[in-house]
Amino acid sequence: MGHISIPRLTHHIGQTVTLRGWVQTLRDQKHMQFIILRNPTGTVQVALEKQQNPGLAKIASTLTRESAVRLTGRVVQNPHVRLGGIEIHLADLHIENRAASPLPIEPFGKGLPGLEPRLNWRHLDLRRPESHLLFQVQTTVEAAMRNFWYQEGFIEIHTPKLMGSASESGAELFELPYFDTTAYLAQSSQFYKQMAMAAGFDKVFEIGPVFRANPSFTSRHDTEFTSVDVEIAWIESHADLMAFEEQWLCDVLSTVRNTHGEAIAEHFGSEIIVPERPFPHIAMEEAVARLAERGYTPPSEKLGDLCPQGERLLGEYIRETFGHEFVFLTDYPVSVRPFYHRRYPENLAVTKSFDLLWKGLELTTGAQREHRPDILAAQAQEKGLLLEPLRFYLDFFKYGCPPHGGFGFGLTRMLMVLLGCNNVREVTYLWGPKRLYP
Amino acid sequence: MGHISIPRLTHHIGQTVTLRGWVQTLRDQKHMQFIILRNPTGTVQVALEKQQNPGLAKIASTLTRESAVRLTGRVVQNPHVRLGGIEIHLADLHIENRAASPLPIEPFGKGLPGLEPRLNWRHLDLRRPESHLLFQVQTTVEAAMRNFWYQEGFIEIHTPKLMGSASESGAELFELPYFDTTAYLAQSSQFYKQMAMAAGFDKVFEIGPVFRANPSFTSRHDTEFTSVDVEIAWIESHADLMAFEEQWLCDVLSTVRNTHGEAIAEHFGSEIIVPERPFPHIAMEEAVARLAERGYTPPSEKLGDLCPQGERLLGEYIRETFGHEFVFLTDYPVSVRPFYHRRYPENLAVTKSFDLLWKGLELTTGAQREHRPDILAAQAQEKGLLLEPLRFYLDFFKYGCPPHGGFGFGLTRMLMVLLGCNNVREVTYLWGPKRLYP
Repeated sequence: MGHISIPRLTHHIGQTVTLRGWVQTLRDQKHMQFIILRNPTGTVQVALEKQQNPGLAKIASTLTRESAVRLTGRVVQNPHVRLGGIEIHLADLHIENRAASPLPIEPFGKGLPGLEPRLNWRHLDLRRPESHLLFQVQTTVEAAMRNFWYQEGFIEIHTPKLMGSASESGAELFELPYFDTTAYLAQSSQFYKQMAMAAGFDKVFEIGPVFRANPSFTSRHDTEFTSVDVEIAWIESHADLMAFEEQWLCDVLSTVRNTHGEAIAEHFGSEIIVPERPFPHIAMEEAVARLAERGYTPPSEKLGDLCPQGERLLGEYIRETFGHEFVFLTDYPVSVRPFYHRRYPENLAVTKSFDLLWKGLELTTGAQREHRPDILAAQAQEKGLLLEPLRFYLDFFKYGCPPHGGFGFGLTRMLMVLLGCNNVREVTYLWGPKRLYP
Repeated sequence: MGHISIPRLTHHIGQTVTLRGWVQTLRDQKHMQFIILRNPTGTVQVALEKQQNPGLAKIASTLTRESAVRLTGRVVQNPHVRLGGIEIHLADLHIENRAASPLPIEPFGKGLPGLEPRLNWRHLDLRRPESHLLFQVQTTVEAAMRNFWYQEGFIEIHTPKLMGSASESGAELFELPYFDTTAYLAQSSQFYKQMAMAAGFDKVFEIGPVFRANPSFTSRHDTEFTSVDVEIAWIESHADLMAFEEQWLCDVLSTVRNTHGEAIAEHFGSEIIVPERPFPHIAMEEAVARLAERGYTPPSEKLGDLCPQGERLLGEYIRETFGHEFVFLTDYPVSVRPFYHRRYPENLAVTKSFDLLWKGLELTTGAQREHRPDILAAQAQEKGLLLEPLRFYLDFFKYGCPPHGGFGFGLTRMLMVLLGCNNVREVTYLWGPKRLYP
């Protein structure tokens, strides 16, 4: 199952080894055959002098690029070989799976294919070492997030993805027949993670899929994506959440830099900067005023909010003013926030909420929640919601629900900024919505 | 946000502390008031001599059981108090959220309510320390699984839950309108994790939801559950997978025993035994023969397979014969396995597959996969499947897919056996299918 590490073959000179991997290139010359074999540990040259073993040469001559092979040979020093001064003298070759030819896309050709064909042939596109690195980074990011939570005593929950009513609003909701009734796909774990607060769990997290019936084809949206969710009880205000989140994020970025910093620089040309704490904060009202000075007007339908372009401009303003890549944008007006966000007692038009932007891209929406049942119900009605479909949710607050709050965090958006990619599709394992097979 | 640990209050004698938690009981006597305060760290008695602070006594007298409160008081030694010989002399009390009275269920009453009312009021049911422990155990189980994978160089993937065609069969499939087409909820990550193999990822895992439109109300089934999925490239046979799985599982059980063994014994009366390796193996044909000797006949529609009762009997046979709680049941006939399971070259009627049973309950189905495209397509057609909806999947095997295999593992089933519960509903955070709100 495991591989002998190709970079460590220098420790096996003179020995016979078995290697598994893919035929990245094949040169079939008059007297010699050369294979560049690739596997997740690296690439190595394999050579065969044809007259030494004509039967084996015949098998090798049937190879196609990207075929999966298992081969055996002796490790030999050869200072003329560019790949580590090492080559394998082929002794045996088994073709596990011959690649059809031509390949539908050329993952290793000069110049990448376009994004569409790459996504159509994702399993070939993912063979590039950059793609492997991307998912190694994702693995490290999540491991670091989790380790931080474990140390802080968080409990992991798996909330239902099939719901009986809309979690936040009726818009962008997938609906499906569920035996003799109707169910909806969860747009977030919002209500369910709040249930954990009502259950007396101090701190919970979940990493899981959420669904938005948004036919949008922008570079920032998806109908299905991985949401990172955190909810914490007994907070004083949303300031506790921001302090938590920035500490957590610095820890994660520090781990990513230590583990993959060099490889990310090499493959993505992106430098990981572990940000200084505390992150800059700016209230929405002030952000709008600062951006107005720079000639930005929010779209009329988003009064008191920013559009993605405004967020980018704010990112630039923060970078220029504070030399920081992150900013907590706080104190959103009630009009642009969901009913369950808590409001300032001294200013009921403003919520105790925040977004976190990284280089001008929204990663997080968070807030202290309203946990007083009468006020919560009134806020829902004020937003035009019916109380009956919310009954199960509103019941969470009737029997001793502590003050709490939390945030949701977009994993793919973070990876996008981290690696300097331009599109969530590149950092998503298999991107819909049109690409539904299988 | 954090709590002062109640068991460690003995280190704070004479000090004034602030505690947060729930009013588990309240005794309002003529001269004294006593509250038992509970939070995730434990329970402690809080006392107030009424005439010392009549205003505070008045507030305390309005308390109801399960209200969420924040209180301040002095830590005092009192050898008459059963809870650690400690009590808090109340100085201040803030009711964060008053519980309505009566409670719809009594989580701390004598005798548990029935399972239905408990699930209907899950946020109250989850307040019991056993429930907290259950989800702490789940958190530890998943952390241990992941740590093992991280050390082995696994990559974490998040596969789509919205699919364009059935992943395994058309049965038990949730279907939903997806813009101008139809999508299906993934019944497993099977095809997608195999895509990672075609992409040259060596070892991948995923923990995520899967969906089965099974209206079944047995104690072992759910329409949505958390599946633990593993897929490994370059295996020689399914024996590699079983060897991996048993090592992984022993590591997880050892961590659970070290972390929660005593608490599990106290709350669930269940002892965690880290099993000996290798686990017993038995081929299906032999299992059927051994059970026939004990008077068991498999149902005619499952010829060559066992029904749940047969699995329980096999668990008993293995325990009696080998003194072991686990058994790998191997070599299922083709008729009861999906088309993509690889077959023995010397016996094409039998698959290189296995289930893992724990105390007679199936936890895992695994197999080496057929990775040769022509044979795979032929096996699909033999099962009556159309190739066109499988096109995207079959393409994985055309361009150099290495030999591979993997298994799926039911998280809730494992927790059920681990804690000696009788029903997946008890170990599921919020159980459907009828309980769809929110």
